[in-house]
Amino acid sequence: MSHDAVEVIQAKRDGGRLSDSQIDWTIKAYTEGAIADEQMAALAMAILLNGMDRDEISRWTAAMIASGERMDFSSLSRPTTDKHSTGGVGDKITLPLAPLVAACGVAVPQLSGRGLGHTGGTLDKLESIPGWRADLSNDEMMAQLESVGAVICAAGDGLAPADKKLYALRDVTGTVEAIPLIASSIMSKKIAEGTGALVLDVKVGTGAFMKDVDSARELAEVMVALGTDAGVRTVALLTDMGTPLGHTAGNAIEVAESVEVLAGGGPADVVELTLSLAREMLAGAGRDDVDPADKLADGSAMDVWKAMIRAQDGDPDADLPQARESHVVAAPASGVLTRLDAMAVGMAAWRLGAGRARKEDPVQAGAGVVWHARPGDEVREGEPLFTLLTDDSDRFERALASLEGGYDIGEAATERTPLVIDKVG
Amino acid sequence: MSHDAVEVIQAKRDGGRLSDSQIDWTIKAYTEGAIADEQMAALAMAILLNGMDRDEISRWTAAMIASGERMDFSSLSRPTTDKHSTGGVGDKITLPLAPLVAACGVAVPQLSGRGLGHTGGTLDKLESIPGWRADLSNDEMMAQLESVGAVICAAGDGLAPADKKLYALRDVTGTVEAIPLIASSIMSKKIAEGTGALVLDVKVGTGAFMKDVDSARELAEVMVALGTDAGVRTVALLTDMGTPLGHTAGNAIEVAESVEVLAGGGPADVVELTLSLAREMLAGAGRDDVDPADKLADGSAMDVWKAMIRAQDGDPDADLPQARESHVVAAPASGVLTRLDAMAVGMAAWRLGAGRARKEDPVQAGAGVVWHARPGDEVREGEPLFTLLTDDSDRFERALASLEGGYDIGEAATERTPLVIDKVG
Repeated sequence: MSHDAVEVIQAKRDGGRLSDSQIDWTIKAYTEGAIADEQMAALAMAILLNGMDRDEISRWTAAMIASGERMDFSSLSRPTTDKHSTGGVGDKITLPLAPLVAACGVAVPQLSGRGLGHTGGTLDKLESIPGWRADLSNDEMMAQLESVGAVICAAGDGLAPADKKLYALRDVTGTVEAIPLIASSIMSKKIAEGTGALVLDVKVGTGAFMKDVDSARELAEVMVALGTDAGVRTVALLTDMGTPLGHTAGNAIEVAESVEVLAGGGPADVVELTLSLAREMLAGAGRDDVDPADKLADGSAMDVWKAMIRAQDGDPDADLPQARESHVVAAPASGVLTRLDAMAVGMAAWRLGAGRARKEDPVQAGAGVVWHARPGDEVREGEPLFTLLTDDSDRFERALASLEGGYDIGEAATERTPLVIDKVG
Repeated sequence: MSHDAVEVIQAKRDGGRLSDSQIDWTIKAYTEGAIADEQMAALAMAILLNGMDRDEISRWTAAMIASGERMDFSSLSRPTTDKHSTGGVGDKITLPLAPLVAACGVAVPQLSGRGLGHTGGTLDKLESIPGWRADLSNDEMMAQLESVGAVICAAGDGLAPADKKLYALRDVTGTVEAIPLIASSIMSKKIAEGTGALVLDVKVGTGAFMKDVDSARELAEVMVALGTDAGVRTVALLTDMGTPLGHTAGNAIEVAESVEVLAGGGPADVVELTLSLAREMLAGAGRDDVDPADKLADGSAMDVWKAMIRAQDGDPDADLPQARESHVVAAPASGVLTRLDAMAVGMAAWRLGAGRARKEDPVQAGAGVVWHARPGDEVREGEPLFTLLTDDSDRFERALASLEGGYDIGEAATERTPLVIDKVG
């Protein structure tokens, strides 16, 4: 059935619900260019302000999936499982997680993205490894899943093209923060990707899109329902993003930290979140009999990591790129670090060159922020608190401004938010 | 001060007010193309849903005026006054009104527009007069105001260019019906036009943008405040647009009806509204000592009309174009016409070719609807109720569908809404 863009916009603007036929027509017409960007922008703002009910979101997601191809991993000899994070600062979890779960016998087909704004992108991090390439054909992806068990690569243009176009539009029109649009964007890609099970890491806190637990829970519930309705076994963990993860935010420096985890070490919070997500992924794939901690300890997760990097032409043993310039921030007082703000650290890393402002921008492999203490750690006046890394020393000033007011040093440790706040689904 | 489009959109999206600096930057950047259409569309939807306070609307209007040139009629030997209607069905009032007020000794510099949608455009109507041209230079306009006293012409590109761009965008993005945007659009053009006094005809009812008196009153109050603050003596009449004006909706047929009024005849409601608006326009210009009814009776308004048409190369005595095809709708029953819906009639006229769907479309000079009875009139079964006029007989079917349910025939006349509902300012 044919509709008219203005009719659809007016219906949502006036607080009505969109019919299945209106949604199907809208997504198809937008993908084909029959709805102009300015029309979709007005509709996206109306959706952000007036909302969508569960049935509308479900239909919107289905229409975005139908705009492109669907992958099918049913011919693989192993079950499949995947993870998606809504994006955080220092969130390198996918890097150790994918090979770890593969080492447990479950295939991980992780289609990932590049970063925009203060949260880093998994592909940007991996591209700091010499030789590694993000673009694989569907056949290469399938072959690697069979032989190595894990693949992290760029989503092809064929997958949910409506979402690709809409995502870029939302980014420049102030319409990113709409739960129906976030949920349908994530889930259309994950359902089209064809994974059998899915674990969502929904971040909550200053460094995340969702600043409070209630909105994060709502987003998680919507996404779990979308996955479940589409036959994907889906659960979500709500996890803290008030504090950045680990000790590093950047690209190469996060790869190095991930390799520490795979080697059996690494920051405690990164290890904890990696294992929590691995257990949920294995449970979703029917393999909760395996303990992923064993696979970190016995080196098998590291073996899969190296095979995974090599299969995509990367050299897992090569030296990683280093930033040309560094600047150390000393602790201004002695005491206990009581707060380290994820947004402040993320903005600093972004301003140092680790992230991009526009999707055409390059990123610096070596840039980023290292924090030498985490909340609860003791610090001593004059000793290094942060190390800032970049290729352009004129970036330090704005990065330092981002960090100002981003941490507190006090007398004694305050109570910490648990890393895993809740589970949905 | 420089801003960022997403920052401005987010501020309004989140229910905040825009600063003077944000508004100035936004209008300038949009006019120059630094804010993209999709960004302005998202902002327009946020303004529609979250509103603007009086100070924001006032600044927005001032910024639109500042985007272009301002005209100045202070060197004329007569005071100036103008009228603006928010648009209705059969609303040909400007045609008899401008020469009538000029005949009373006050100059009328009426910059007008073409129609879009179901409400007709004054220029479209006048262009059905052989030879008449809408485009005048500023010098031609000034000379005609001095010699004839009235001019109705197209607004030049130099006047509020930001509004021109924004108006076209709102039309395709479902963001027309926002009081702050309607008020600032109308008033930026009228203030930039340089009239000394202004009367606003704010239409209320099914055939108008404003469907109820409360929203019409709010729009009127905002516009009167904007005009007054800018030094233009401004009042508004709220007038009924539940029933179309006169007996005709179209182009040439509305010119003919206007000429009847100028000749001392014409439909009673058209005469009443023309005189009510003329009296307000004269009062605004300090000439309430003159009774415009005398100028209809003594033929002096008709003299100005002919001079005004001739000054723009039109022949006021030429035969008007006629539609090639006509179709008569007979009254289905005998009784009293108790309701005639303005929107139904407007849509029918539009579908017959009197209006346009897109601004590039041509209009048919002869197309339109004639209704042979008005609410309160007796009708007899089988006698003509409507005559539909068009050059393409395949347009009748959809026009007839528009009229269905658009009128009622009953036993006795019901109470009528007064034509002039209220006055603001």
